[in-house]
Amino acid sequence: MTLTRTALAELVGTAFLVATVVGSGVMATRLTDDVGLQLLINSTATGAVLVALILALQPVSAAFNPVVTLVELVLGLVGARAAACHIAAQLGGGVLGAVLANLMFDLDAVTIASTQRDGSHLLIAEVVATLGLVVIIFGSVRSGRTETIAFAVGGYIAAAYWFTSSTSFANPAVTLARMFSDTFAGIAPASVPLFVLMQLIGGALALGLVHFLYPTPQEST
Amino acid sequence: MTLTRTALAELVGTAFLVATVVGSGVMATRLTDDVGLQLLINSTATGAVLVALILALQPVSAAFNPVVTLVELVLGLVGARAAACHIAAQLGGGVLGAVLANLMFDLDAVTIASTQRDGSHLLIAEVVATLGLVVIIFGSVRSGRTETIAFAVGGYIAAAYWFTSSTSFANPAVTLARMFSDTFAGIAPASVPLFVLMQLIGGALALGLVHFLYPTPQEST
Amino acid sequence: MTLTRTALAELVGTAFLVATVVGSGVMATRLTDDVGLQLLINSTATGAVLVALILALQPVSAAFNPVVTLVELVLGLVGARAAACHIAAQLGGGVLGAVLANLMFDLDAVTIASTQRDGSHLLIAEVVATLGLVVIIFGSVRSGRTETIAFAVGGYIAAAYWFTSSTSFANPAVTLARMFSDTFAGIAPASVPLFVLMQLIGGALALGLVHFLYPTPQEST
Amino acid sequence: MTLTRTALAELVGTAFLVATVVGSGVMATRLTDDVGLQLLINSTATGAVLVALILALQPVSAAFNPVVTLVELVLGLVGARAAACHIAAQLGGGVLGAVLANLMFDLDAVTIASTQRDGSHLLIAEVVATLGLVVIIFGSVRSGRTETIAFAVGGYIAAAYWFTSSTSFANPAVTLARMFSDTFAGIAPASVPLFVLMQLIGGALALGLVHFLYPTPQEST
Repeated sequence: MTLTRTALAELVGTAFLVATVVGSGVMATRLTDDVGLQLLINSTATGAVLVALILALQPVSAAFNPVVTLVELVLGLVGARAAACHIAAQLGGGVLGAVLANLMFDLDAVTIASTQRDGSHLLIAEVVATLGLVVIIFGSVRSGRTETIAFAVGGYIAAAYWFTSSTSFANPAVTLARMFSDTFAGIAPASVPLFVLMQLIGGALALGLVHFLYPTPQEST
Repeated sequence: MTLTRTALAELVGTAFLVATVVGSGVMATRLTDDVGLQLLINSTATGAVLVALILALQPVSAAFNPVVTLVELVLGLVGARAAACHIAAQLGGGVLGAVLANLMFDLDAVTIASTQRDGSHLLIAEVVATLGLVVIIFGSVRSGRTETIAFAVGGYIAAAYWFTSSTSFANPAVTLARMFSDTFAGIAPASVPLFVLMQLIGGALALGLVHFLYPTPQEST
Repeated sequence: MTLTRTALAELVGTAFLVATVVGSGVMATRLTDDVGLQLLINSTATGAVLVALILALQPVSAAFNPVVTLVELVLGLVGARAAACHIAAQLGGGVLGAVLANLMFDLDAVTIASTQRDGSHLLIAEVVATLGLVVIIFGSVRSGRTETIAFAVGGYIAAAYWFTSSTSFANPAVTLARMFSDTFAGIAPASVPLFVLMQLIGGALALGLVHFLYPTPQEST
Repeated sequence: MTLTRTALAELVGTAFLVATVVGSGVMATRLTDDVGLQLLINSTATGAVLVALILALQPVSAAFNPVVTLVELVLGLVGARAAACHIAAQLGGGVLGAVLANLMFDLDAVTIASTQRDGSHLLIAEVVATLGLVVIIFGSVRSGRTETIAFAVGGYIAAAYWFTSSTSFANPAVTLARMFSDTFAGIAPASVPLFVLMQLIGGALALGLVHFLYPTPQEST
């Protein structure tokens, strides 16, 4: 498995993920005034596309999330050079996805989001959201349940939009990319650093939990 | 498999389950006035998170429900000490989940719910809801279909919100935890004892049905 | 596999199926005035419960539908006596489910539905709906894909509510049972005979198609 | 596998797919005025029916899309004569599905759609939508993950309705068929040629990506 291939898979997957997060938000706000329905559309579309992207790209590489890649690095599932390339690809892919969504909806290629997302309760939410995501993924990995990760992640994220006050960004690459579209899913640049920090904390806490709950990795069946 | 690990899995899983039930109710009522849409959001998020939690935690332990643990005890799938620990973990995890949801939505850590849920038709509903849940789970277990329990339970609960007038609590740990958030999913303490009693009755009836329908346990494939 | 067991599974499954169809309709109409949302709730709950019921009960018996049982009979998958018992159990289970739904929602145990469902376009719809359902089920069976029938049927029915003008009854036992609740999902007795006749015609047409498309049954993997 | 059988499977599958796209649009617009809800119904029904149709028909043939068949041809998965027959069957099946939907909803058998779908952003959207679809399908095929293509495609299409401004036609047979119903899902004939051209371009770009990401086809497990 060459690094170019796996990095490209991370770029393509993260681009489609962000295009879905951003694009479905734009479409939803254009078609309905009910904010609850807008977020249901946003959450359902994101969960559904994650099932598709992970099923198809996982045999190459399907983290689409720097926190997930960092946990893979700590667990020895990828090397340092691959991790760096994957994270770069995720960041680039995320921005590409936001730009694509903007263009597909006839907006400027880039607009800087103005939606402030502040408050300590949102920060708690990002810790919880990312902790849960990492436990779901690496619990599956260490139990040998790699075949169903697509459904676990899709279900988790579709729900996490709703049970966290932050709508569960839980992904630094997606968070950064969402700065570049001043639409429903946007996040103002000033809100990004704390979101990313909380995501890293959530990931670190999850790593401890994963080690305790799943001490011995099982072979995938 | 140490008992600390399995109990922790029960605690973590029940916490995320209750956080989803409570949190998605808060978010939904904040974003839309349509009560039908609120409950659709609540039911969809709960079903989706159950898929994720069971897929990832089942290799450790994933009952998240004292009725389910009691049926495991009767069927000899767990011992008495493990059952007691798991139930304690579920109760604690449930309360933790309610507190987390409250904090994530910038509410007081604990508020006592005021929503009365009374009437004999609601009690019938809890019997039916729990009976169905236990048949779905242990029918799958005794048929060797453990790999798809996550989908069976997620689908069942997402539907049971709607076909029972009680919105299908069907879980004593979740019922108790929902006392601690005076929001959409809350239940007044006075309504809890009969709900739990009906859930236990539903579980007992289901046990008879499971024995009759699935007399011989099959190995998981 | 004794006949009592398989018939009981048909009764239990059909009861929960009809309770979901009827009950989710009652709950939806109580909570929202948007008829589109009401039917989305109805269709989603029905699809979700079918996934659960088929996953858990299929190792015993999970037709829940006289047309499906008749096709099983023609294909030699069940004997005549079993088919008769299963159909009787489906009819009884369906009525039981409607009564349970009525009681859970604090309605009279039985009310006769007044919703006329007439017109040749509805009858075409029932032929198409049942034809598609039988092709989906027995295409899966004859391809050896029995493990995924739950998802195929759940997905098909959730969609068929919408692509047929009749909302896709596609099941004589469910059709009869829906006479006994004068609510969202009800059907007036006068409309039932032609619905059932069209379902039988759809099943017969499907049988021809299944023989042509899947000439040789494959072993389940 | 005779060609008549596989072509018939393509015809039946594409007919049900188009009947769902068109029919669910008609039903949704009749039942609610919320355009966001209408498209959520349309997208959910389409994703759900794709799961069912692919699970059941894939053992015979389940491309339902000329772009997919052309990629199969280039990859040597079908011969030229089969590809031609499959595409003809898809085109015929699509029109049949539109006519069936019209008749089931008591409309004229054929009406020519008047909805103009123009603008370069819609064209970009069709390239992106089709590119993603082809990567999802053939990524799965070349990874040996044929068993989960139904879920990958259903999830992808349910999401793609929302992340593309065009609502993701992504299929020349479906695009042509949607000319024949002047309803929610319709497309004016004048808009069709560029949509189909963009879909072919998206498919060609995807082919390059698939070759790079999945250089060596894996056996299905």
